Amino acid sequence: MTEQYLLDPDRQPTLAGVKRAAEKVASILPPTPLLPLEIDGKTIWCKAEPLQPIGAFKIRGGWHRLTDLTDEHRKNGVVAFSSGNHAQGVAWAARKLGVSATIIMPEDAPKAKLENTRALGAKIITYDRMGGNREQLAANLSRDTGAVVVPSFDDPWVVEGQGSCGLEIREQMIARTGSAPDQLVVCCGGGGLASGSALANPDAKIAVVEPEGWDDMKRSLEGGTIVPVKENPPATDCDALQTLLVSPITFAILHQREATGIAVSTAEVHHAMRVAFKKLHIVVEPGGAVALAAILAGKVAISDRTAVTLSGGNVDNQLFARIIADG
Amino acid sequence: MTEQYLLDPDRQPTLAGVKRAAEKVASILPPTPLLPLEIDGKTIWCKAEPLQPIGAFKIRGGWHRLTDLTDEHRKNGVVAFSSGNHAQGVAWAARKLGVSATIIMPEDAPKAKLENTRALGAKIITYDRMGGNREQLAANLSRDTGAVVVPSFDDPWVVEGQGSCGLEIREQMIARTGSAPDQLVVCCGGGGLASGSALANPDAKIAVVEPEGWDDMKRSLEGGTIVPVKENPPATDCDALQTLLVSPITFAILHQREATGIAVSTAEVHHAMRVAFKKLHIVVEPGGAVALAAILAGKVAISDRTAVTLSGGNVDNQLFARIIADG
Repeated sequence: MTEQYLLDPDRQPTLAGVKRAAEKVASILPPTPLLPLEIDGKTIWCKAEPLQPIGAFKIRGGWHRLTDLTDEHRKNGVVAFSSGNHAQGVAWAARKLGVSATIIMPEDAPKAKLENTRALGAKIITYDRMGGNREQLAANLSRDTGAVVVPSFDDPWVVEGQGSCGLEIREQMIARTGSAPDQLVVCCGGGGLASGSALANPDAKIAVVEPEGWDDMKRSLEGGTIVPVKENPPATDCDALQTLLVSPITFAILHQREATGIAVSTAEVHHAMRVAFKKLHIVVEPGGAVALAAILAGKVAISDRTAVTLSGGNVDNQLFARIIADG
Repeated sequence: MTEQYLLDPDRQPTLAGVKRAAEKVASILPPTPLLPLEIDGKTIWCKAEPLQPIGAFKIRGGWHRLTDLTDEHRKNGVVAFSSGNHAQGVAWAARKLGVSATIIMPEDAPKAKLENTRALGAKIITYDRMGGNREQLAANLSRDTGAVVVPSFDDPWVVEGQGSCGLEIREQMIARTGSAPDQLVVCCGGGGLASGSALANPDAKIAVVEPEGWDDMKRSLEGGTIVPVKENPPATDCDALQTLLVSPITFAILHQREATGIAVSTAEVHHAMRVAFKKLHIVVEPGGAVALAAILAGKVAISDRTAVTLSGGNVDNQLFARIIADG
């Protein structure tokens, strides 16, 4: 690994990079479980990322990026913008490495995510989700302080880091069933987890799932070019998936792999959260349940070897209680 | 292993037996995660048994017992009495082995446990928890049909099987921290999990935790002889821990190890469930949260290497929602 590699923002994420990220992640975090779930007599495999120390897969990309910072970078700290899970991933990695972290979070982020990020020692700046320009805020801060911006998905390290989740799924499925997954159904905000996991599983079909009205990756894949979320998107519980525009890096990978886009309704998401509660005994946040929701709603056919991501579990207690009680 | 061994009900559970059980369990079930939890700057290690396929550790004893049945035994089926988790453990093992299972369950068992047991193909007979004599019901059924009774804790196989949980904890802690646990804090109904896990960790201090008013193991350990639950015990959410009398097998092991007994209140249990929800993203049922409750309430001091069992997660959605919303 050369200094050049560490500084080149234009490099593309690769399978080799995913493998390197997975080694670094494995050195500090044991694999989260891959849990079988029987649906209509077939078994699907659920990757339980709510069991990460920060309650979401985002710890992977944060760790891969921050451990590749140069000493110079580390001195100036990092800045990230995030609705909460990426915030915690970056803050967790920064604390482990003794690097200062500033996180720009929407003012309506779930309380649990704000509190947890603060508890990890990060400095928090809030902004207005629809009106504010978080990229500009981060760029200004970086210019003023020399802090390295760690994007939540539009970054080769972050994509590779999240891909370590897909690599674990692959290895765990081979260990449990003798075969790699032939289909991955993945929650999608900006597409970091989906594109990284696609790299890790070159022979699998990829389906990416978004909330209805926030399905810009689906529409981009169908149109063959990146399109933003339509104006006035609906309210959604899936705070983790409210990206207004996907990234050229994640889009390119998913487009090349002919990934399918799927949109799920709030009712379908809530049903999936109840199934995870009852059958798996895992707390899944709305945005972390969209992939399972797509399967349970029959919007993606179960293959013989389907794996699905449960990508996070940071949900406010009142909201979770309302959804679970309604079953 | 001889036929004699398989038929001898008087044999005592041993560390060798726990190791044999653990090998059998490992051949079919991957270890559940051992999750770090930071409390006041110290880290404790939480064994996440709600992630078992039946949502509780009871699958271990069921599997160890049923896989040791002779062919003759298997033909006649098995009978068990249980508030629900042992029921599911036995039913799960029976289905895997093609053995018929009849389960005697209290009529007020949580709906989730009744439904899940039925879904696993077991025949269910209900009885009145305070008035009925489930042991007699099981004995009658065994006499009439030749079915083998699989007790929920008063049985050497079951104790050894549950002990595989303690052995996994030991191996996982050594892998993660370099050291075995020096203290185990364990949920206790009849004491199967606690005594089996004590066998697996001969050098650890053992604390067993029960709900207030159902603390017969605590009182038995303090008095040096088995005493039953006092008359008119209070209502409790901890349906899994409502044993009226512990077993000579489990008591002997825990007494010899000078285990400490601790009782926790309903409020302490609910708080522990909320902590597991928020910090670990695991659904824990009340009876599965008593050990963590004792630690969070300061009723057991955290050592440098404390492990705690989260023993099950089968809780009705309405009850869970009420408890979680109340945080």
